Amino acid sequence: MKSVTVLGSTGSIGCSTVDLLLQAPERFRVAALVGGSNAPRLAEQARALRASHAVIADESRLPELRALLADDGIAVSGGRQAVIDAASQPVDWTMAAITGAIGLEPTLAAVRNGGSVALANKEALVCAGDVMLRAVQQAGATLLPVDSEHNAIFQSMADRQADQVEKIVLTASGGPFRRASLAEMEKATPEAALRHPTWTMGAKITIDSATMFNKGLEVIEAARLFSLTEDRIGVVVHPQSVVHGLVQYTDGSIVAQMGSADMRIPIAHTLAWPCRMATTSPRLDLAALGRMEFEEPDEVRFPALRLARESLRAGGAAPTILSAANEIAVEAFLGCGIGFLDIARVVESVMQAIGHQPADTLEAVLHWDQEARRAARLRTASLAA
Amino acid sequence: MKSVTVLGSTGSIGCSTVDLLLQAPERFRVAALVGGSNAPRLAEQARALRASHAVIADESRLPELRALLADDGIAVSGGRQAVIDAASQPVDWTMAAITGAIGLEPTLAAVRNGGSVALANKEALVCAGDVMLRAVQQAGATLLPVDSEHNAIFQSMADRQADQVEKIVLTASGGPFRRASLAEMEKATPEAALRHPTWTMGAKITIDSATMFNKGLEVIEAARLFSLTEDRIGVVVHPQSVVHGLVQYTDGSIVAQMGSADMRIPIAHTLAWPCRMATTSPRLDLAALGRMEFEEPDEVRFPALRLARESLRAGGAAPTILSAANEIAVEAFLGCGIGFLDIARVVESVMQAIGHQPADTLEAVLHWDQEARRAARLRTASLAA
Repeated sequence: MKSVTVLGSTGSIGCSTVDLLLQAPERFRVAALVGGSNAPRLAEQARALRASHAVIADESRLPELRALLADDGIAVSGGRQAVIDAASQPVDWTMAAITGAIGLEPTLAAVRNGGSVALANKEALVCAGDVMLRAVQQAGATLLPVDSEHNAIFQSMADRQADQVEKIVLTASGGPFRRASLAEMEKATPEAALRHPTWTMGAKITIDSATMFNKGLEVIEAARLFSLTEDRIGVVVHPQSVVHGLVQYTDGSIVAQMGSADMRIPIAHTLAWPCRMATTSPRLDLAALGRMEFEEPDEVRFPALRLARESLRAGGAAPTILSAANEIAVEAFLGCGIGFLDIARVVESVMQAIGHQPADTLEAVLHWDQEARRAARLRTASLAA
Repeated sequence: MKSVTVLGSTGSIGCSTVDLLLQAPERFRVAALVGGSNAPRLAEQARALRASHAVIADESRLPELRALLADDGIAVSGGRQAVIDAASQPVDWTMAAITGAIGLEPTLAAVRNGGSVALANKEALVCAGDVMLRAVQQAGATLLPVDSEHNAIFQSMADRQADQVEKIVLTASGGPFRRASLAEMEKATPEAALRHPTWTMGAKITIDSATMFNKGLEVIEAARLFSLTEDRIGVVVHPQSVVHGLVQYTDGSIVAQMGSADMRIPIAHTLAWPCRMATTSPRLDLAALGRMEFEEPDEVRFPALRLARESLRAGGAAPTILSAANEIAVEAFLGCGIGFLDIARVVESVMQAIGHQPADTLEAVLHWDQEARRAARLRTASLAA
């Protein structure tokens, strides 16, 4: 039996993970489930999985959780430190799916246990890449990427062949503005930007798909995960989103992973790795699909890709700054404070204003994260004025 | 250094193999090159690769080969037994690329050495599957498939996950008659059938692509190589022929291999396995390609797939009989003795006439091969009359 902990169990990735654990209860022992603020869902999950421990990050919900799990023999705790403590308990496999900067410390705690960490928290590698990778190396942990693109690359890269990888290619749906003109994008509303063609996701990541900042962050994430420089990480627009990532070897072979748009597929891969487990996810039927299309991304209409590559080349805090500034700019766009194309403009001006900064420690990362947010808020406010 | 022998070095696959060996001479020591009848080419290859031994199957060309290699310190021999003797010398890696039933014995001899055998001889598994697999098991040999489809499956299947394969899918170009009507196919000339849309190959295999007997034989080959029943081996028509094969796992993930239409890519994979080696083969550019299409094969217009599946379910000599009858029918079609759709009719009637027969030994295989040819000749003669 594999012992597992789920950080962020009440979110979208967490719920899919719980689904999978419920499908093969004989294979997994659940040490802890960590939720944000949804006490009823967390209690239900903990009971269904007979978890040893349920932790709620929002301490104000702890009494509710306690009441819900009063007679189940499940340990209950709440608050930030309780989350980190739960993440610190050694298990074979941890799902790190607490999004945002708030997920950094619990993810680091899980990594320090040296087990397998399924990584759904992009920030861990984008903002705190050096810190995270050092912790992984020191603890001998294994990072298993959950993002469908990175999971695809992981599935397509054989252990003994990583030194013969020529390049990897991440696919992008192209988002709702794949065929839009710059003029149309300038006037795009949050409503239009939230219409993602293939995946159903949260608002932040959906806007990131529309700007292609999501793909930019994924290029950064891939560089960390697979130790590749940015020139060896390609992006191809593939509107059907069935091929998720490709690995091109020096012999000319390309190995790729594909599947339907169901996050349970990559999650199951990380959960059963290095073996496989059965899922009931819909199977991809190529003949029914009929056709796949591929095209070059347009860095003029989507400057996010260029900015992400620049931040990778700059190194240090640059990716942290890019990610933080983008977060604030997206919030401002969703609140109708700035225009769609302003998002990248804000990010670029913040990157230029702060310049090159080191980010060797978690403290430095969090500092530049805050500085970038502050600078981005000033800019979005002046644009909104 | 890896010691290698190339059986069939002067043919198309053999020449590509020699090309690759020449690109990395520091990695390979060539024990023997075995050619058919092209003495000048064989001599040139042997000299370029500093092979220890050059063998020509056509004994009448032995004096010519001897004269060509008079001063090179390369051992020279000729004739059927010399071929088998050369194949019997233990090496790390053998390319088995002597096509047809004549390649069976040398391939078996190579397998019995227990090294890695790159298998380009379809007949070895289609006609003599049981015999070959028994020899592989007894010798602890490793079969590395060279056919682009099977090589793709091999690349896409991780060792520790073979028991979690739900199905594999071989791609087919669909050939020149993908969109033809039955009436057009009834009247198709050898010239039309020889116009293959994507690969440049010999006449026999090109006609087999047009009838889809090639894909039928590949389904049989895949069943042997990957120990799968025919219901777990799918075929999808993919006119661009860039995805060569796909493996679908029980979790819903599909891993696939793609590449440009260059046989040096799969050959290099088998040559460097379990690592990789660099080649100068053209790289596949998905954005430049633009689109891939997929459709179900039509078993009414292409009965070959159905016949191949029937032969697999019947087992014993049935695949041998299918393959041998097809060979004769293709010859008759190329000689304008029978029509295009008669090819499958001849095969089906021969299969029905001979019925279920065991094929546990090489002798039995060769016997039913001959019987099927005899029966097919009678039928093609009566159709031509």
